[in-house]
Amino acid sequence: MKSTTEHLTFNIPSRMGFVNITSQVEQVVARSGVKEGLVLCNAMHITASVFINDDEPGLHEDYKRWLEKLAPFDPSPQTYHHNRTGEDNGDAHHKRQIMGREVVIAVTKGKLDFGPWEQIFYGEFDGRRPKRVLVKVIGE
Amino acid sequence: MKSTTEHLTFNIPSRMGFVNITSQVEQVVARSGVKEGLVLCNAMHITASVFINDDEPGLHEDYKRWLEKLAPFDPSPQTYHHNRTGEDNGDAHHKRQIMGREVVIAVTKGKLDFGPWEQIFYGEFDGRRPKRVLVKVIGE
Amino acid sequence: MKSTTEHLTFNIPSRMGFVNITSQVEQVVARSGVKEGLVLCNAMHITASVFINDDEPGLHEDYKRWLEKLAPFDPSPQTYHHNRTGEDNGDAHHKRQIMGREVVIAVTKGKLDFGPWEQIFYGEFDGRRPKRVLVKVIGE
Repeated sequence: MKSTTEHLTFNIPSRMGFVNITSQVEQVVARSGVKEGLVLCNAMHITASVFINDDEPGLHEDYKRWLEKLAPFDPSPQTYHHNRTGEDNGDAHHKRQIMGREVVIAVTKGKLDFGPWEQIFYGEFDGRRPKRVLVKVIGE
Repeated sequence: MKSTTEHLTFNIPSRMGFVNITSQVEQVVARSGVKEGLVLCNAMHITASVFINDDEPGLHEDYKRWLEKLAPFDPSPQTYHHNRTGEDNGDAHHKRQIMGREVVIAVTKGKLDFGPWEQIFYGEFDGRRPKRVLVKVIGE
Repeated sequence: MKSTTEHLTFNIPSRMGFVNITSQVEQVVARSGVKEGLVLCNAMHITASVFINDDEPGLHEDYKRWLEKLAPFDPSPQTYHHNRTGEDNGDAHHKRQIMGREVVIAVTKGKLDFGPWEQIFYGEFDGRRPKRVLVKVIGE
């Protein structure tokens, strides 16, 4: 069994943002030499997500508005108990649960085994500082 | 390490619907010959889900009503920016994020290692056309 | 390829609750002898979750209030069709979908490959009885 572990770092200039990381994950898979196996790709921070959906800017705007409705940003400690710790990112811990922490992707014949529109995104909900994504490939 | 890759195709006659795919996934595991390992089962389309829950029609009705409340169908480009592209399925990209893209299941002694009520479902949010699910088994 | 399968049992005294299970999962990984691989950790019941987030009691209170808002407890069969079966836990099947069934974690150099704040939680939404979590480690 082969395995490869790499970390990607993102520093999103705004509080919330999405970055297409598909080609970076493809490069890790190519470097791994794995032809048949699985890739795990996860946010290493608990106010961020890795998810798979469409690379369409209108949809990303929709996601932002929707997440803001489901878990609005509010630094006050009344809305989120979490903000009593001095943090202001209670909302981000909720948004991340909706969008998920990780994706697991099949590697088949050395490639990400994707449907026609699948693209991998880093989702940031409390940005303006460097945060990491782990990519782990296992297989043969 | 052994690995097997199969695709299942579903054509749901309505916009939203759930199909129990447990026995089909079990058959792929049996064909793989894997006794100890993992199965990845994911929607290959970004307006569909694979998830694990109860095979109970009342619950499925509840899910449909709940998802419709959290992300209502609305073809107008005012509600979902995504629909400015000419699509009418902005809602489906949101419903899929709630229900998830994939499940990873343990294979133990050649079987899906499930609790008493776990069943695997294909969840469709923009049906009326053929769409695929990937089943990848790895292990020994 | 090595593999190890263990089950953890939880009996949460309330309907909803969260338990940090990180050290228990670390112990399974240590016992497995796997140095490079993946761990799957999933609820075996469909009204419970395994998820990764912050070990901060205020945040856990926030999650409870938020989940109660998104999918309120209501035993009546009017709110949840599922409760026509005689169950009263329709809400719990919804809360679990928000928080997810499972996590997949990288094992690197024999350890859970975690960011600074990642902790694994068992999330219970219909407690007061014993329920199980599966931990499956594969790798080398």
